[in-house]
Amino acid sequence: MNLFVTGGAGFIGSTFCDSALSRGHAVTCFDDFSTGKELFLAEAGRSDRFRLVRADIRDLPQIHGAMEAARPDWVAHFAANADVRRGTERTRRDLEINTIGTWTVLEAMRLAGASRLLFTSTGSVYGEPAVFPTPEDAPFPEQTSLYGASKLAGEGLVSAYSHGFGMTGVVFRLVSVLGPRYTHGHVFDFVRGLRRDPTRLDVLGDGNQTKSYLHVQDLIAGFWTAIERARPGPSVYNIGHDDTLIVRESVRIICAKLGVSPDVVYGGGTRGWVGDSPRIQLDTRKIRALGWAPRHGLPEAVSDTVEYLLANPELFG
Amino acid sequence: MNLFVTGGAGFIGSTFCDSALSRGHAVTCFDDFSTGKELFLAEAGRSDRFRLVRADIRDLPQIHGAMEAARPDWVAHFAANADVRRGTERTRRDLEINTIGTWTVLEAMRLAGASRLLFTSTGSVYGEPAVFPTPEDAPFPEQTSLYGASKLAGEGLVSAYSHGFGMTGVVFRLVSVLGPRYTHGHVFDFVRGLRRDPTRLDVLGDGNQTKSYLHVQDLIAGFWTAIERARPGPSVYNIGHDDTLIVRESVRIICAKLGVSPDVVYGGGTRGWVGDSPRIQLDTRKIRALGWAPRHGLPEAVSDTVEYLLANPELFG
Repeated sequence: MNLFVTGGAGFIGSTFCDSALSRGHAVTCFDDFSTGKELFLAEAGRSDRFRLVRADIRDLPQIHGAMEAARPDWVAHFAANADVRRGTERTRRDLEINTIGTWTVLEAMRLAGASRLLFTSTGSVYGEPAVFPTPEDAPFPEQTSLYGASKLAGEGLVSAYSHGFGMTGVVFRLVSVLGPRYTHGHVFDFVRGLRRDPTRLDVLGDGNQTKSYLHVQDLIAGFWTAIERARPGPSVYNIGHDDTLIVRESVRIICAKLGVSPDVVYGGGTRGWVGDSPRIQLDTRKIRALGWAPRHGLPEAVSDTVEYLLANPELFG
Repeated sequence: MNLFVTGGAGFIGSTFCDSALSRGHAVTCFDDFSTGKELFLAEAGRSDRFRLVRADIRDLPQIHGAMEAARPDWVAHFAANADVRRGTERTRRDLEINTIGTWTVLEAMRLAGASRLLFTSTGSVYGEPAVFPTPEDAPFPEQTSLYGASKLAGEGLVSAYSHGFGMTGVVFRLVSVLGPRYTHGHVFDFVRGLRRDPTRLDVLGDGNQTKSYLHVQDLIAGFWTAIERARPGPSVYNIGHDDTLIVRESVRIICAKLGVSPDVVYGGGTRGWVGDSPRIQLDTRKIRALGWAPRHGLPEAVSDTVEYLLANPELFG
């Protein structure tokens, strides 16, 4: 089938493009390269079923034109501002990209007659939930970040368009994702720090904070599961891993991969770095009921991320 | 205190301005008169505590400047696109006014150091709820209209700004409101029809559809109750009347007020007019727990609406 992938040069988007091409589909990748990278499309670019459109998702004529040309069976909308911590510094940015951008994608779809959408939202829409693990139908949440609010607004638009125009709108609420091409977060920071100084690693908190991640390949598998089972109208799936990993263990894996034995200096306290996410643990029974389950453990997710960074040191700038 | 009222020339906004002035407060009314009316501000305009700024809420420099001048203790943000039925014809309109407009108001507040906001949302954010009456913490809803989605997005922004910048954000989810200055909906339509032809009234449905309304004066009383009890952070209140009125009874009240005895022709079926709202019945225990209760019955809400229309026939254009 024909796939139209916004943010297709990003971490999740490019991995999805590669996966779609390997399954024999045709892919139009739409990206403005504000955060996406040419490097991530090196493999995809070698396929004659791959097309690249370089433009901004907020540009309705551009995205509409690209969609008319692609006639996609599915649109996968990953383009987003994912810099959660800086929401209060640049208060319009999340609104622009995640909300207005999502409207633009939906409107382009309506105008071009494209009717199936996969949209990546976030577990942050649950704010500070009272229930863990948090199910999709948790009590009406209170938004605690501009990032969460902007993604919730995007979800609302996907749902309203699905109802109003007979579209199929599949929303995924994600936890943190790791794996090859992930160039943010603590794994990236630790590897960068240890490349500079392999004798010492400063870690905020006491190292016993638990974190959960999903391997990007498991996320992509979840997308295919939902695409295969999709029905008209809106639907929402949590996705994530039930396991957790403590930061201390993550540090151990990273050091072993790098072959270094630094003095690890824990800053102390139970909190992590500034802007560390509040607890997110999602109830994933709904997507599991469709036959999906994660196949990569958390140590493997950390390890694969480090391996990719070591193979692509230019990513450290 | 100083109040800054967006959409202050509209139905709810102008009624709130009058109420604030009668309580001795100073009011800055901010309206672009796209749907607001000079007529509604006739009384307010005679007060020396009333100022009018004519501009668009999406114009950040304008609203920021007006807010710097007003230094409001409270901002009441009523400006909205309330034309629910046409959401699918002009798909960007709700987003522009109700979402982007609300961001602009919040950002102007942040820049001007204003920290307390009252925001009118809608019971439509519950979509098609499984629980009646629907409480504020109903299960995470699915948006069924662009109007509901745009107001939900506005709510999310109010909540995120309240968390991120220490604001007080009070959100009201409204049912249908009636009373003087209401110039839409079936009461307006019936009065207009009977002024043209007092011998016949066509009514869609079988006349036994139940509707609930809140008298605008009860809504305003609810606003004052919440303002007096407000605490920093976000809070959400449903507001509405527990009683319902069947359309047949509404017709009887309108005809009696007009002194006409038309042949009332029911179109039949149990559905109302095209675009008739789905069932909305809100659980109002939370606002009632603060001491609020409606003081106007539904027949009185219909009757007051008709009386105002008869006294202001220029509203029929």
